[in-house]
Amino acid sequence: MTATAASAPDRTVDDVARTAAAAFAGLAQVAPATRADALRRAAAALGEHADELVATAQVETGLAEARLRGELKRTQVQLRLFAHVVADGAYLDVRLDEADPDFVLGPRPDLRRALWPVGPVLNFAASNFPFAFSVAGGDTAAALAAGCPVIVKGHPGHPWLSERTAQIVAGALVEAGLPEGTLQLVTDQDAGVALLEHPSVRAAAFTGSQRVGQLLAARAAARPDPVPFFGELGSVNPVLVTAAALEERGDALLAGYVASVSGSAGQLCTKPGFLLVPDGTAYDDAVVAAAADVPEHRLLNPSIADGYERRVSAVLGADGVRVVRPGGFRRDADGQAWVTPTFVSVSLDALRGAGEAVLDEVFGPFSVIVEYPRGTDLAAVVGELFPGNLTLTLHLGAGETSADQGALVSALGEHAGRVLLSGWPTGVAVTPAMQHGGPSPATTTDGTSVGTAAIGRFLRGVTFQDAPQELLPAPLRDDNPWDVPRTVSPRGASAEW
Amino acid sequence: MTATAASAPDRTVDDVARTAAAAFAGLAQVAPATRADALRRAAAALGEHADELVATAQVETGLAEARLRGELKRTQVQLRLFAHVVADGAYLDVRLDEADPDFVLGPRPDLRRALWPVGPVLNFAASNFPFAFSVAGGDTAAALAAGCPVIVKGHPGHPWLSERTAQIVAGALVEAGLPEGTLQLVTDQDAGVALLEHPSVRAAAFTGSQRVGQLLAARAAARPDPVPFFGELGSVNPVLVTAAALEERGDALLAGYVASVSGSAGQLCTKPGFLLVPDGTAYDDAVVAAAADVPEHRLLNPSIADGYERRVSAVLGADGVRVVRPGGFRRDADGQAWVTPTFVSVSLDALRGAGEAVLDEVFGPFSVIVEYPRGTDLAAVVGELFPGNLTLTLHLGAGETSADQGALVSALGEHAGRVLLSGWPTGVAVTPAMQHGGPSPATTTDGTSVGTAAIGRFLRGVTFQDAPQELLPAPLRDDNPWDVPRTVSPRGASAEW
Repeated sequence: MTATAASAPDRTVDDVARTAAAAFAGLAQVAPATRADALRRAAAALGEHADELVATAQVETGLAEARLRGELKRTQVQLRLFAHVVADGAYLDVRLDEADPDFVLGPRPDLRRALWPVGPVLNFAASNFPFAFSVAGGDTAAALAAGCPVIVKGHPGHPWLSERTAQIVAGALVEAGLPEGTLQLVTDQDAGVALLEHPSVRAAAFTGSQRVGQLLAARAAARPDPVPFFGELGSVNPVLVTAAALEERGDALLAGYVASVSGSAGQLCTKPGFLLVPDGTAYDDAVVAAAADVPEHRLLNPSIADGYERRVSAVLGADGVRVVRPGGFRRDADGQAWVTPTFVSVSLDALRGAGEAVLDEVFGPFSVIVEYPRGTDLAAVVGELFPGNLTLTLHLGAGETSADQGALVSALGEHAGRVLLSGWPTGVAVTPAMQHGGPSPATTTDGTSVGTAAIGRFLRGVTFQDAPQELLPAPLRDDNPWDVPRTVSPRGASAEW
Repeated sequence: MTATAASAPDRTVDDVARTAAAAFAGLAQVAPATRADALRRAAAALGEHADELVATAQVETGLAEARLRGELKRTQVQLRLFAHVVADGAYLDVRLDEADPDFVLGPRPDLRRALWPVGPVLNFAASNFPFAFSVAGGDTAAALAAGCPVIVKGHPGHPWLSERTAQIVAGALVEAGLPEGTLQLVTDQDAGVALLEHPSVRAAAFTGSQRVGQLLAARAAARPDPVPFFGELGSVNPVLVTAAALEERGDALLAGYVASVSGSAGQLCTKPGFLLVPDGTAYDDAVVAAAADVPEHRLLNPSIADGYERRVSAVLGADGVRVVRPGGFRRDADGQAWVTPTFVSVSLDALRGAGEAVLDEVFGPFSVIVEYPRGTDLAAVVGELFPGNLTLTLHLGAGETSADQGALVSALGEHAGRVLLSGWPTGVAVTPAMQHGGPSPATTTDGTSVGTAAIGRFLRGVTFQDAPQELLPAPLRDDNPWDVPRTVSPRGASAEW
């Protein structure tokens, strides 16, 4: 089977995988300072080609220039942030247990543990973030930072952008001293699946639909040697609103909701798919007024448009669904769809009755306003109908700060990776405390795909016991040549255990 | 379906799972100091019943009293060590990003992330460590420390010990203020599988055979909402010996090997299943002499004995296998098997030819000496024949400290969780830097089941964004009431990114 990247049409899957394995061996010889420098150079190279890359992305995705420039900057910042993580070294979680003849359970050997790269990582790129979750995106940055070569399965929605990004970034990495093959691109779908089953691939990351993500996760689990599959499969991101919040700032709140649903034509995995309001709330006028200002936006590609049409029809066909604000949908001569946002409403009971037809994600500028009876236990509703999300948002009134509300906030944390108070979930900060990943079905495996903690997905612990200094990997040596932070368990300290 | 613990014969699986879910909600209200105290009390309660527990274990497992007393102490130390981890709070990995209007990618909200318990954990106990990997063993201690209720599926090899341990420990936990149902025991095999598929169970741990572990892992992955399955499935733990090491200390080395294979009748997941020596090495006499001192030992139970007989026959039937030291095997009137150790040898080429028949684990006092041609690339042999192990051991001569040997040590780290220099893999220290878990097939999912890092398997990240102080979980509040270590990203610091 050939891997068919346009830049290397004749390479086989096995050739790509073996190249990654060879690069992994080479990367192990590279000092972390060089790896950090390579990430910074990759960021700089993207900046040097910004005009060309953004123009290509505009044509291929229909996303607006300002959004794409912001996303490219985010992608550069991700790479530089991980350079910082690599240089710091705390991510290695180095633990040194001194040999201890008086250890409470009998003599303890000298034990030195750190986290090490898992090996070549396969990264299935997303359609909706052609920079930030694609060839040089967050998963690639995290894996490279960990010391893993990356094979990207490019998304067919932006093929030329993928090729150019791969050329630019791979070139920068090699120039910085990383091995050839540290970053590779394949474009063929079957090649992606074959690589997922190749013994040299040690972990996979994915951002995309539930259906495809679950299929691929099952393939990864069915290998003779299963590998972790970190899939981010989207989310419906319910927003819970109290009567007090609406009373205080109803119009602003509803305008914020419409803006969060409409940005990037709703093609964001953190788009609020549901707004839960107390019954009797008046929201139609405010939603219609805010939505009137939203310009027509192209959907990413005809396949996304097909899915959007299908899901919108399913929701509109469900019992008890009322259209609050009908959106537009038209195809142009190239088969691309142009849309404006649609909002519908449904009672909590009708939502229960409709089930998946309404509860499943609609990827695009569409959202459902759910009217709940006053006094409803919102935590129970989330557990029942929305058990796994990337985000859950709670809009409270200024005075709602009781222990009950504190318990609700904590309970929401059981069903999401990020819990927001009185904000909007779209817009994900790239920063140490970010969590982008939540209980199933939001992600297949615990972990975050945004923020510095994302590096942990591509690391595994290995302990070296009683190794002479000369044979130890650098971060475990007494002289600590990389100057990484380390936690020492001294001899003689175990009596208290 | 009934869960049929003898102490509660009429409880259904659903009842057990709901009880665990209710205990989880209760545990969330318990301060970490109370949780730490409860772990210490559980350890103390085990100590108070040591004589009774050890006597029961001796009858049910055939393991020697000294070994069982040591194991019970280890189990107590594990609980106390995790009490220390809970009280310290570093395991929460708290990260606070200050709100930053000048953040490099636009205004950053206030973000506060920590690791939280995943929910009820199902723990499939092992047969070979009736204390340390059973009802109150390492997986239970790690999950309780994380704040997760535990349902133990007891091993049928030591049913009464399991019941008594569960009564003693569950009682101590409740007395310390933890909710009823924080620790539960089920004994029925089908109940264990049904619990693995119950929506309230959020993670599973397992210590046992590859066959059963892989079956259960597949069930966990096939759930509509897959949960992590941390299976420790055993290992063959190759020991690589150089000519220089043999020359220096051949007799002592071979005596150490025999002792490591024979302890606890070889029924340890870190038993060295293979010793690789340069061809032309004389080892027969030393092995036979050392093995002569090993007393007959009972195998754990008739089912283990059946497996041992079957696997030994398979190895002995393979082409090129020569018996170095035949072991004994007899059944007593109760159907229990009594054994002495068996050692065989094979050339590297014959091992390649024999494949799984010889390469698969033999659980019991049996090991294979492999003669490799001098000059063989040992790292390549490990990658080819032994790709995933709990441990790999390298015996070098005193002068063998070159860069080549350093590269070999690092390469071994790709195929094991623990790499030992000139030691023996049996005897696993319970301590912060331990790693007990390695690449497939040794474990199903990355992680360690021994040492303080084991807690990480039962935690997931959740970030709270822009939450008022009053609504934040304790470890994220400005006043840090639990006094946990935290990493702060201050405002104004992102320009360098």
